[in-house]
Amino acid sequence: MKISVLTLFPEYFEPLMTTSILKRAKEKDLFEFETIDFRQFTKEKHGHVDDTPYGGGAGMVLMCQPILDALESIRTENSTVILLTPQGKTFNQSIAKELSLKEHLIFICGHYEGFDERIRDYVDIQMSLGDFVLTGGESACMVMCDCILRILPGVIRQDSSDDDSFSNGLLEYPQYTRPEIYDGKRVPDVLLSGHHANIKKYRHEESLKRTAMYRPDLLENLNLNKEDQKVVDSVLKIKK
Amino acid sequence: MKISVLTLFPEYFEPLMTTSILKRAKEKDLFEFETIDFRQFTKEKHGHVDDTPYGGGAGMVLMCQPILDALESIRTENSTVILLTPQGKTFNQSIAKELSLKEHLIFICGHYEGFDERIRDYVDIQMSLGDFVLTGGESACMVMCDCILRILPGVIRQDSSDDDSFSNGLLEYPQYTRPEIYDGKRVPDVLLSGHHANIKKYRHEESLKRTAMYRPDLLENLNLNKEDQKVVDSVLKIKK
Repeated sequence: MKISVLTLFPEYFEPLMTTSILKRAKEKDLFEFETIDFRQFTKEKHGHVDDTPYGGGAGMVLMCQPILDALESIRTENSTVILLTPQGKTFNQSIAKELSLKEHLIFICGHYEGFDERIRDYVDIQMSLGDFVLTGGESACMVMCDCILRILPGVIRQDSSDDDSFSNGLLEYPQYTRPEIYDGKRVPDVLLSGHHANIKKYRHEESLKRTAMYRPDLLENLNLNKEDQKVVDSVLKIKK
Repeated sequence: MKISVLTLFPEYFEPLMTTSILKRAKEKDLFEFETIDFRQFTKEKHGHVDDTPYGGGAGMVLMCQPILDALESIRTENSTVILLTPQGKTFNQSIAKELSLKEHLIFICGHYEGFDERIRDYVDIQMSLGDFVLTGGESACMVMCDCILRILPGVIRQDSSDDDSFSNGLLEYPQYTRPEIYDGKRVPDVLLSGHHANIKKYRHEESLKRTAMYRPDLLENLNLNKEDQKVVDSVLKIKK
């Protein structure tokens, strides 16, 4: 897997590759990552990449030429080109899983007011991180890269990712570590019991309860068995 | 407005403050921003901040003591403490607006497998960026900070933010800049007409059409007038 990011601010992405889990994964060559400053592709004589919008209005609009020339310089038939834009599909864990199977992802990060509408014709996927507006696509792109790369084999322990929130359709169960009592608050007895079957049952039920409490929408896509449904119903009853 | 971020990786946030729009806004003292490495607060003799989970399982869990001691060292009665967690409320533009009015925001970024459940008792808001899992809360926190700080008076031009996607409940209209023809694709005539009323009408209708096409859910919260509803209906008809 290779990720290429088209951006005016390559330095933005340095910490992503020099910190913690992804740093170690990159050192093990589990993926390739590059940034391309599309300003270097502009044919505008002063080095500009944006211009005022046709029809007037505030802000500057990124021009087609620098971005699309940068894109064509690295695109191959195995590339999937993703444009970050508020009108795109909302990113989530199952999209991340799909994208983690691709050979080459190219992200295009806008900045300032937006980009020339015609750029949309040259991309494969339009993607949004959520219903909010940013100064540029860079931080949103970092989030997506982090999420996608984390899924690649070897980046984190497999048994660790199996427990993730959303991976089995539920929020993760509560976690506790030392000390047993902190500020008067105790770790639940079952977790200290050493009884593995009970611990497993407790965690599964807590996942269900938490999801029913905070994200009941996630339950709609699941086929719950009778016992699970009972746990969920007990929470929904309290909520009412 | 001041933002404090509790994190194990303060270096992650450097580009946020040294790049583009937020760099200039910080130089004008439009806000304060600091990162606090909560590892410096640990009382564990080897400097650890995490430990294995009670009840077993993969991964490490962040301990209460370093995070909560770091928190208490900076928290005042004017602080709003936000924990980044998948079970939190999903972040969006209207939450960002609310948060942009607060005096002091403190973000707590988890990392690795998660954090001790008891930490939740000490925060004001639990927030999620979306339905996906990251190696840590850092990149999600950068997105939220970027979005919130962008709203502060003076950070970007007011007339620019009024046009944003989601700001009026709709996706933004298409933008075009030079040249008039790119790769055979023309800028719409109306934008070259100089007729301001027609341009305004075109943009409003395009916003409506685009929202109806890609994000019809956003329309549910709006009170559309008859003419707007007609535009929306024409798109929904085509979609069927």
